[in-house]
Amino acid sequence: MTITGDQFIGGRSVSGAGKEFFAIEAATGNALEPAFHGGTGDDVEKAAAFAWEAFPVYRETTLEKRAEFLETIAEQIIEIGDELIDRATRETGLSKSHLERERARTVGQLRLFAKEVRKGDFQELRFDPADPGRLPVAKPDLRLRNVALGPVAVFGSSNFPLAFSVAGGDTTSALAAGCPVIVKAHPAHPGTSELVGQAVQKAVELSGLPAGTFAMLQDSGFEVGQALVADARIRAVGFTGSQRGGLALMKIASERKQPIPVYAEMSSINPVVLFPNALRNRAEEIGTAFVSSLILGAGQFCTNPGLILAIDDPNLDRFIASATSALPAAPAQTMLTHGICEAYKKGVAKLSGRADVKQLSSGASDGPLQVGAALFETTGTAFLSDHALHEEVFGASSLIVRCEDEKELHRVLVALEGQLTVSLHVDDGDLDAVRVLVPTLELLAGRLLVNGFGTGVEVSPAMVHGGPYPATSDGRSTSVGTLAIYRFLRPVSYQDFPSDLLPLALRAN
Amino acid sequence: MTITGDQFIGGRSVSGAGKEFFAIEAATGNALEPAFHGGTGDDVEKAAAFAWEAFPVYRETTLEKRAEFLETIAEQIIEIGDELIDRATRETGLSKSHLERERARTVGQLRLFAKEVRKGDFQELRFDPADPGRLPVAKPDLRLRNVALGPVAVFGSSNFPLAFSVAGGDTTSALAAGCPVIVKAHPAHPGTSELVGQAVQKAVELSGLPAGTFAMLQDSGFEVGQALVADARIRAVGFTGSQRGGLALMKIASERKQPIPVYAEMSSINPVVLFPNALRNRAEEIGTAFVSSLILGAGQFCTNPGLILAIDDPNLDRFIASATSALPAAPAQTMLTHGICEAYKKGVAKLSGRADVKQLSSGASDGPLQVGAALFETTGTAFLSDHALHEEVFGASSLIVRCEDEKELHRVLVALEGQLTVSLHVDDGDLDAVRVLVPTLELLAGRLLVNGFGTGVEVSPAMVHGGPYPATSDGRSTSVGTLAIYRFLRPVSYQDFPSDLLPLALRAN
Repeated sequence: MTITGDQFIGGRSVSGAGKEFFAIEAATGNALEPAFHGGTGDDVEKAAAFAWEAFPVYRETTLEKRAEFLETIAEQIIEIGDELIDRATRETGLSKSHLERERARTVGQLRLFAKEVRKGDFQELRFDPADPGRLPVAKPDLRLRNVALGPVAVFGSSNFPLAFSVAGGDTTSALAAGCPVIVKAHPAHPGTSELVGQAVQKAVELSGLPAGTFAMLQDSGFEVGQALVADARIRAVGFTGSQRGGLALMKIASERKQPIPVYAEMSSINPVVLFPNALRNRAEEIGTAFVSSLILGAGQFCTNPGLILAIDDPNLDRFIASATSALPAAPAQTMLTHGICEAYKKGVAKLSGRADVKQLSSGASDGPLQVGAALFETTGTAFLSDHALHEEVFGASSLIVRCEDEKELHRVLVALEGQLTVSLHVDDGDLDAVRVLVPTLELLAGRLLVNGFGTGVEVSPAMVHGGPYPATSDGRSTSVGTLAIYRFLRPVSYQDFPSDLLPLALRAN
Repeated sequence: MTITGDQFIGGRSVSGAGKEFFAIEAATGNALEPAFHGGTGDDVEKAAAFAWEAFPVYRETTLEKRAEFLETIAEQIIEIGDELIDRATRETGLSKSHLERERARTVGQLRLFAKEVRKGDFQELRFDPADPGRLPVAKPDLRLRNVALGPVAVFGSSNFPLAFSVAGGDTTSALAAGCPVIVKAHPAHPGTSELVGQAVQKAVELSGLPAGTFAMLQDSGFEVGQALVADARIRAVGFTGSQRGGLALMKIASERKQPIPVYAEMSSINPVVLFPNALRNRAEEIGTAFVSSLILGAGQFCTNPGLILAIDDPNLDRFIASATSALPAAPAQTMLTHGICEAYKKGVAKLSGRADVKQLSSGASDGPLQVGAALFETTGTAFLSDHALHEEVFGASSLIVRCEDEKELHRVLVALEGQLTVSLHVDDGDLDAVRVLVPTLELLAGRLLVNGFGTGVEVSPAMVHGGPYPATSDGRSTSVGTLAIYRFLRPVSYQDFPSDLLPLALRAN
């Protein structure tokens, strides 16, 4: 396929009239051809009008037709072939194998949601039969179903150019729910976005769906995204990115005449708690596994293990020795963008400069966007006294907090803000100590795991990739897994409707 | 029972140190004994501390125990006997038979939620079995359940002294979800609230639950409510009342360090659309039924039919003649409070004074808080050109909008803000005209009904008492019916947990 630099609005390629920009090759810092033309408020207006027009038709497509549409998107993405992986590798610096796995996940989640749509459980069909003889008043016939919220604005993420971007988790679950989607592509990988946008566009055509079912806008700045969230026809927002970005969108959404839900997945340091028996039995093994998780994708995962908690103990030093000896062997990795790389370096420098933080390891930098992992250590007292130590350093940086005792460990956990995941490294003798903490942990995060790390998010019915604020804007939801579809639905009740007027799904019974 | 003027905090009666106030007898305007002592920030602090302490225990009670607790509350409310109805009649001006029905509903919804808790579906248990042999990576064991959000602040409403107050729909669904509840009693019926509070308090004791499972605070002002919503230990808010009140709570909730969901049911004019064939066949019958719905409880229902839409037609005049002839026969009714009565009179006077609005009927006023119903008529053009005509006049006031044609009727529907209900009066020949409107109506309201009126809200699994903003703060939810429990839950995923560490409900499979 040819990358043109265009957007997709109303089933056509449209060149934006806004600011021109280029994709930057992560490894070299060089601009890549072609030029992309950012959209304008006018493009947002047009895309929203098309989406609004498509909405009543698209949301009432049969489950089978909608499922086939999702499967067609998956096929069309596969169809792009190596070109997609090549372009994504250049734009993001992520490895070919990494991106091939991410493509498999993207296609897999489209197919999983197709199955979910066919099952139809998300419609939440409910039937309360009438009882005309009930006293003191007759009971009406009541039927309920979930309906789609309306057109959804999806913001592509920087770190998942496929799985959380143009046809990623937010888009897939919104389309599955019956919502047209307008994607604001991430400017860090506009070519990858365009290729996937072409695939979705093609699937819309092949499925005979209204042109406004899907649109994709480009912008290297904030204008298009802000206008999109403010548009009255947009009824929900999916976002994965920085806390600053998420909060800005939440503000726009809450100040609209009709406020709308924003599902923003923003920040998490994903505490890992190492329990004494696990440390005694497997300190080195856990240390090595930790480093593997830490450096995965240059640490640019929202589930990256940024915080290690343990009670002071010689076995903790064994863990530290294992991790620090494994780290130098890890090669410097290319980060996604210049901005992300600079923020990482700044975050690491800030920790390095602190008197109450000990730097254990700091991999070498190499090439413009290439950096190594960094590991730090501090005390429970220091961590509890300064909230700055709780902040995420996006990238392969992690902080070990050496706690005095169980009590201090508990205090640290209670002091933390909402997280996506908490990992527990546990052996038999630790179970009682863990059991006491579980109620606290359930309030802290959306996913708790034992003897593993948060990276590697399974896309399945029982997955929660979400968590209390500020990990996400709305801890009642997940952005990964089939439960994500419920973010884009609301219930409607039909009372005493003649069968002819009822939605088809509610005519049974 | 004795009404003491106290609050309930930590299982004890506590006299507030705040402002003293009295219940006002609606029919006479006289103060009723005893004096109530409003709470303070200190009481909020104590109640929140107790609730937070109770939370881990209460949310892990067995389903059977929690169900029995709800049933015990119902029994204890029945136990109060006539005293409850007498006091509520005096405090609210609502009739004895009205309040007996409301008590039946209150007790009924406690029992319905007890059944729902026993069924356990709300836990949303999900199991994804492990697959250690999966390639390229092993599949972990994932299990999911919903957990309770945390302590919930419930604001008693003025117009449902039983069914949406101390042990009303919000309290019942929050307790069912596993959340401790702190009620801010409505100052319009503090004695009724205290009696019900005593019943809940007694049920907490009889069930052997932690003292902080329930608290009730009194305040004739805003201080206690505001402090409650701002408290970090409160994790959700249930509110039924004015738009001003709801928006104020939403603002406090969104400006907290950790924002929390506010479920505010605020305002609705509940459009009623009269279709030509229904009017031709049953104009008089619909007119009489409309008046019955309009004057129910002095029109002080959130589902009151405040807006009638129809296409200009001689049969519409038959409807109007029927309604206007039925209205004078309806006696003046006592409104809930002086403030509500004054606001009603002001709203009616505002409509009466407009050149583009014709006053069709205005019942006589009689006694301090007694007013008659009011009926007005205007044109589609006038309605479309002035948003002031879209505003709710809380009480038995309704506005008929005479539309030129189907197109204008559609324009009026599209111009409306979110509603709780839309009623359609329809006969066979109207079905095509209705069918065209349904997609618009599904976006407009939470409940659509045919040949009925929104008043009389069934408490059942398929009920939606909710609707797009500003009918409620969050159109993705309902405050009536079993679906309401989901407002107070969030999903948590457990990955590779040893069976011993899993919550009991997730150990099966």
